[in-house]
Amino acid sequence: MTTYSKDNRCRLLVQCPDGPGIVSAISTFLLEHGANIIESNQYSSDPEHGTFFMRIEFYCADLDDKRSALESDFIQLAERFSMEYRFAYHWETKRTAIFVSKDSHCLLELLWEWQSGDLETDITCVISNHDDARELVESMGIPFHHIPANKDIRQQAEAEQIRLMEEYDVDVLVLARYMQILTPDFVARFQDRIINIHHSFLPAFVGAKPYERAYERGVKLIGATSHYVTNELDEGPIIEQDIERVDHRDHVADLKKIGRKVERRVLARAVKWHLEDRVIVEDNKTIVFR
Amino acid sequence: MTTYSKDNRCRLLVQCPDGPGIVSAISTFLLEHGANIIESNQYSSDPEHGTFFMRIEFYCADLDDKRSALESDFIQLAERFSMEYRFAYHWETKRTAIFVSKDSHCLLELLWEWQSGDLETDITCVISNHDDARELVESMGIPFHHIPANKDIRQQAEAEQIRLMEEYDVDVLVLARYMQILTPDFVARFQDRIINIHHSFLPAFVGAKPYERAYERGVKLIGATSHYVTNELDEGPIIEQDIERVDHRDHVADLKKIGRKVERRVLARAVKWHLEDRVIVEDNKTIVFR
Amino acid sequence: MTTYSKDNRCRLLVQCPDGPGIVSAISTFLLEHGANIIESNQYSSDPEHGTFFMRIEFYCADLDDKRSALESDFIQLAERFSMEYRFAYHWETKRTAIFVSKDSHCLLELLWEWQSGDLETDITCVISNHDDARELVESMGIPFHHIPANKDIRQQAEAEQIRLMEEYDVDVLVLARYMQILTPDFVARFQDRIINIHHSFLPAFVGAKPYERAYERGVKLIGATSHYVTNELDEGPIIEQDIERVDHRDHVADLKKIGRKVERRVLARAVKWHLEDRVIVEDNKTIVFR
Amino acid sequence: MTTYSKDNRCRLLVQCPDGPGIVSAISTFLLEHGANIIESNQYSSDPEHGTFFMRIEFYCADLDDKRSALESDFIQLAERFSMEYRFAYHWETKRTAIFVSKDSHCLLELLWEWQSGDLETDITCVISNHDDARELVESMGIPFHHIPANKDIRQQAEAEQIRLMEEYDVDVLVLARYMQILTPDFVARFQDRIINIHHSFLPAFVGAKPYERAYERGVKLIGATSHYVTNELDEGPIIEQDIERVDHRDHVADLKKIGRKVERRVLARAVKWHLEDRVIVEDNKTIVFR
Repeated sequence: MTTYSKDNRCRLLVQCPDGPGIVSAISTFLLEHGANIIESNQYSSDPEHGTFFMRIEFYCADLDDKRSALESDFIQLAERFSMEYRFAYHWETKRTAIFVSKDSHCLLELLWEWQSGDLETDITCVISNHDDARELVESMGIPFHHIPANKDIRQQAEAEQIRLMEEYDVDVLVLARYMQILTPDFVARFQDRIINIHHSFLPAFVGAKPYERAYERGVKLIGATSHYVTNELDEGPIIEQDIERVDHRDHVADLKKIGRKVERRVLARAVKWHLEDRVIVEDNKTIVFR
Repeated sequence: MTTYSKDNRCRLLVQCPDGPGIVSAISTFLLEHGANIIESNQYSSDPEHGTFFMRIEFYCADLDDKRSALESDFIQLAERFSMEYRFAYHWETKRTAIFVSKDSHCLLELLWEWQSGDLETDITCVISNHDDARELVESMGIPFHHIPANKDIRQQAEAEQIRLMEEYDVDVLVLARYMQILTPDFVARFQDRIINIHHSFLPAFVGAKPYERAYERGVKLIGATSHYVTNELDEGPIIEQDIERVDHRDHVADLKKIGRKVERRVLARAVKWHLEDRVIVEDNKTIVFR
Repeated sequence: MTTYSKDNRCRLLVQCPDGPGIVSAISTFLLEHGANIIESNQYSSDPEHGTFFMRIEFYCADLDDKRSALESDFIQLAERFSMEYRFAYHWETKRTAIFVSKDSHCLLELLWEWQSGDLETDITCVISNHDDARELVESMGIPFHHIPANKDIRQQAEAEQIRLMEEYDVDVLVLARYMQILTPDFVARFQDRIINIHHSFLPAFVGAKPYERAYERGVKLIGATSHYVTNELDEGPIIEQDIERVDHRDHVADLKKIGRKVERRVLARAVKWHLEDRVIVEDNKTIVFR
Repeated sequence: MTTYSKDNRCRLLVQCPDGPGIVSAISTFLLEHGANIIESNQYSSDPEHGTFFMRIEFYCADLDDKRSALESDFIQLAERFSMEYRFAYHWETKRTAIFVSKDSHCLLELLWEWQSGDLETDITCVISNHDDARELVESMGIPFHHIPANKDIRQQAEAEQIRLMEEYDVDVLVLARYMQILTPDFVARFQDRIINIHHSFLPAFVGAKPYERAYERGVKLIGATSHYVTNELDEGPIIEQDIERVDHRDHVADLKKIGRKVERRVLARAVKWHLEDRVIVEDNKTIVFR
């Protein structure tokens, strides 16, 4: 679509109380700093008293040199509109860690998307409470860490996980069917940065054994939900959901097989959008600028 | 597809403990009585100790004359396999009553489908706790009955409804967004014959105000569910479900608009399948032979 | 979502060669004229040498009074960027004529959406080469005109149609399964304003009898396509498409029944988006700002 | 669903002129030979003068011992109804060869499904006109053969491929984005056993560069089609199709990325159904007993 080199691209994420003049101020600021808008999305929860959200992708020649001027000049504008904001440079590739338990289909999907160049990220490591995926992961040149985990050793497992997150300087944690509960401390440390895949169409079948319960209930569609992890089980902000049709002939094992296909495509989409800074969390919901 | 006249068509519905010889016995019986199988579906919940279900549509010349022989001869076969069964003749068109409150989109969809010849039924009457739909319904030559209903006059409203169901000799009651609770007595009287549309993807958002709660939860898909009514609110056997994609820009009013489209197509499908004897209730679930 | 009254809302549609400063100029212009942006979409076919497209919905107190100043002040800005542009005021409701032949399902869908308040339009009249839909249309208070049409009397039929379009001051012509070919003269007169529904997933099955040919080919999905009419048969810019699953049991009559459901929802969406000024034609394709 | 061991399961595939008594004869035959029907599907192209198709999955204790009696006894029945038929025993696992060119996404999907136990097959080898996939394939213990191929050396490439098909005793050839034309001789040798994935919603965009042409046409959905290969390019019997939504922002590269997801799921479904003997070719169409 464009010949603009990645090195000179950046995303500006903004949120502030809605009011007149925000778009004018931001677009004029970018113009004056020699930046061209490539893609722009905005949303206001309510034009009168709501919150305004914006995602602008722009191109700017010699961006690396201009960066500090750009950022320091923006401070005044941001103060004027009481903005929270962030410049996300293309060269600051987000660093991802994938957590997995026994089922590897979601892990595989992410690795494949990453290999195909569809995920803007460095996959720094894979962490699992089982050793099953080691060979696969290491064959792709990605470090694999087996950290046993269960209720009794949660504390020490998380301590080790946190140590690794720091060592690898991780930005995003993807729970690709990681079947362990995380403590509030752990969750708080990575707020809005832990992405989970739940194997049901939330809020249906919150908690354990959703396919078994979907079978019991006799639903005609099964789903999967990707969401940010909060301390309320399966209650975090939803990023993406999808479903697949089933019928009376499908027993629990069939639902699980069919469900695997939904889970992996839902998680892959959610992770992709997060990595492209398209997801904004507001009030336990998400705005997704697609 | 076939030139067989409707007058000589019949559906045989069977369910019995699974075991050897059932299909052989039924198909041989039909052969010996000069009946040709047009369509056949079967399902066994478990081939060893489960229940066997079958729906056969057959053609038989001079069916009206042969009917009594067919039925009396079948008794012996049915006893041998401990069958529950039913012969549904094409000429015995099911008689439907539609219940509606203020929102008329589901009513309209059913009336259109019926006018287009897609619903095998006589629509005997429309019953509403509001008078809004009268003109529309009566313009199509269908009797309309306004029966006010609320918590305080439920008993007498249902008495009047039951009287009408008897007067019109109704087989199927369709709740096309009828927003009144039915009493256990009423439900028991029409077991597996009351079809409801619930405006959510059950079991998510059981009960009142599902769109409001879907908005609160920030779901990315909204759904609708058609099910038989039981005395557990929104817990009856599910016949059909479908969904539509929404996003952060869709407020409650938008969800309702989008939801209307899902509701009407889900209810229309469920009613169609019921009328064609494609739905079998077993153990609070449905088998749908499509 | 907002309490802004409709009377003070307007959409600005812009397209121009892409280049720096366009968003800044437009948003600053609106700010200086007291207008608040409610919704904004933009797209550039190529940020370097492409065309820039924008749709802004804004609110402005006392818009009716300010209108002439707004429009005359914008001329200078438009010239600077070589813009084509249009102000579309909410009070200037588009005037629609629906053309239909025998099949009324698409007509019915549009009338119902319109009655529900989902289509921002005045339906000025329905024109048909058959008389079948008269009663339905007139019962809703809409004028119905029966204009016989076929190859031999095309000229005079179109003359009468054009006379009515002028009399009713029509902006949009919707061909809701209108099965007559239009002449190049007629099409030229209403460029990018005639919306057709074709009963196939274009470009598959261009031309006549698409369901018959879909059946012959043994496809597993059937579709419908809504597009602007051009003089290349079924080759105009596509606005919307959708599909429905079919299988080997579905004969031509079944495909037609299933297809009706796809046709009506595809046409209704396309018409809705057109009426909301969300569709821009560029180079025989459409940009749809949803 | 059942505890019946795989060793005692078999599928009987039958097709014959439709007429009275077929189901009775087959089901009685199975009963008399001690076989229990697990799953049964039937279809008649026309109950009066059409062709009858049946797929029965049955269980029979000591099937291996009874096999020859079963088959020889069936001959008489088959002759009576002029049947074509086939017994497909579960222990006769079909042997698959996968052909691939540069794009490996469809290959990967098939290998995963196979590893997960979702494909009833032995993957005997992967054949490619490029060497890229060698490491991946060999790491899974599957032989990989690099056979360069192009217009000029087609004859000798196919000779080598045929030699390998014989050596590996291959039943099914899957073209998982294999971008070489096959000669009529090659196709004839493996009639109804070569499954291709075409990267468009056939019959739209037959031939080369479908995504480029989809982009040019401005379609709003892109699709993929899996079909048996015949000597008419992209005109063979369609097994499965699916689509994904796109919009004006998606350039050719985006369509290809999105298309990859559709291609792999469509091909995986088609191959799965073929391996389970659910697909019957009739008159350049398929009957798929799902």
